[in-house]
Amino acid sequence: MRPQIVLFGDSITQQSFRSGGWGASVADAYSRKADVVLRGYGGYNTRWAMFLLHHLFPLASEAPPPAAVTIFFGANDAALLEGTGKRQHVPLEEYKENLRKMVQHIKSRSPKTLVVLISPPPIDLEGRQEYARSLYGDKASKLPDRTIEDAGIYAEQCVALAKELGLPSINLWSKMQETNGWQKKFLSDGLHLTPEGNAVVFGELVKILDAGGFSDLPYDFPQHSEIDEENPGNSFFQECAAVL
Amino acid sequence: MRPQIVLFGDSITQQSFRSGGWGASVADAYSRKADVVLRGYGGYNTRWAMFLLHHLFPLASEAPPPAAVTIFFGANDAALLEGTGKRQHVPLEEYKENLRKMVQHIKSRSPKTLVVLISPPPIDLEGRQEYARSLYGDKASKLPDRTIEDAGIYAEQCVALAKELGLPSINLWSKMQETNGWQKKFLSDGLHLTPEGNAVVFGELVKILDAGGFSDLPYDFPQHSEIDEENPGNSFFQECAAVL
Repeated sequence: MRPQIVLFGDSITQQSFRSGGWGASVADAYSRKADVVLRGYGGYNTRWAMFLLHHLFPLASEAPPPAAVTIFFGANDAALLEGTGKRQHVPLEEYKENLRKMVQHIKSRSPKTLVVLISPPPIDLEGRQEYARSLYGDKASKLPDRTIEDAGIYAEQCVALAKELGLPSINLWSKMQETNGWQKKFLSDGLHLTPEGNAVVFGELVKILDAGGFSDLPYDFPQHSEIDEENPGNSFFQECAAVL
Repeated sequence: MRPQIVLFGDSITQQSFRSGGWGASVADAYSRKADVVLRGYGGYNTRWAMFLLHHLFPLASEAPPPAAVTIFFGANDAALLEGTGKRQHVPLEEYKENLRKMVQHIKSRSPKTLVVLISPPPIDLEGRQEYARSLYGDKASKLPDRTIEDAGIYAEQCVALAKELGLPSINLWSKMQETNGWQKKFLSDGLHLTPEGNAVVFGELVKILDAGGFSDLPYDFPQHSEIDEENPGNSFFQECAAVL
């Protein structure tokens, strides 16, 4: 009945319903208007996510296509080949082509679906190392698993693809670095988002969704103050006839 | 593909995806396992919610029935006939019968659906009055809109019905009052929930869901650490065959 907003991505999407999370905030912002569907897969890169595409977005389905999809990968694709995340690494060109195939797949089901590309965030090396030490102590790898430079190159390609395909995008890598102290303010372990970091994603995304008409969506049933308490059935008959 | 947990209720459900909200916490707890569907209608009582029943829970549907439904009403039904919330008031007996009809409707679609009844929270009169003054100043009504005693009577009938029907329930009215300072600790305006109050609902609900088998649900696709990076297709072929 309600349009769906599907959040497709890695751990930054999977964790987006934690306290202050951007996904939960989207669900709250459009409560009574749209359903938010969480499809976050921690640790996944675009290569692995490609295997999910036909399951999560079946081309032949009775259900209506999603009204919007966020595609938010890259943090794992950009893991360094020399570091502890090497098995997650995906070469830059393949990353971009995987994103392109995801967009094409979703758009082939319905060209009207609003697809939003979100780039990986910047990396705080110090935060990553502190996190590794908190887990492994002296045994923590001294090699970085990710760098801000590599994340930036992937972010650039993500945003370039969005431009090429005429899609809205969020360059989270750039956006976060506009704020002083982004390293600790926005990132909890040098990679994942604090509540303030989640608020950045939410703020950017809601601008795109609202520009795409989501703020104008009707409530799915009458507001309680509009219900005729003497004859509530009348309120529902009229409103439901309009909605259904 | 994933089982659904539908949250059906009034504003305390509608607001459950705000920061620290119980609904978002359920979505987070079962991410990769179940989908949480938000069906909260601010200001609604059970009488008005009855008009939504066939729309939200259609008896004839291609889609699988929800795996679990929380029914969380009563805060508005228990509004006093003499106060500013009088139009929301529903007599006690009708409240109980409406809840019974909701349960019967959902169970008639699928007896296996885990239906959880949640009672209204206690009321903090001082908190309600402070909130009214913050909105209307000296023009705020001096009459209470809700009382802890009335909320308690509705809570009692909610829980009694759950017992009668053999359903799990949460007596939020009692549970919250076990903690000293519940008035400000758990309630933001004498009625709605603070993050700590949300945590009470979440804590009780997750016990019920886990006892109902939800913690044992499989992940919907392989964990990233289990993916064979040399031949990722193998991991997905096996896992997807098991899931699908």
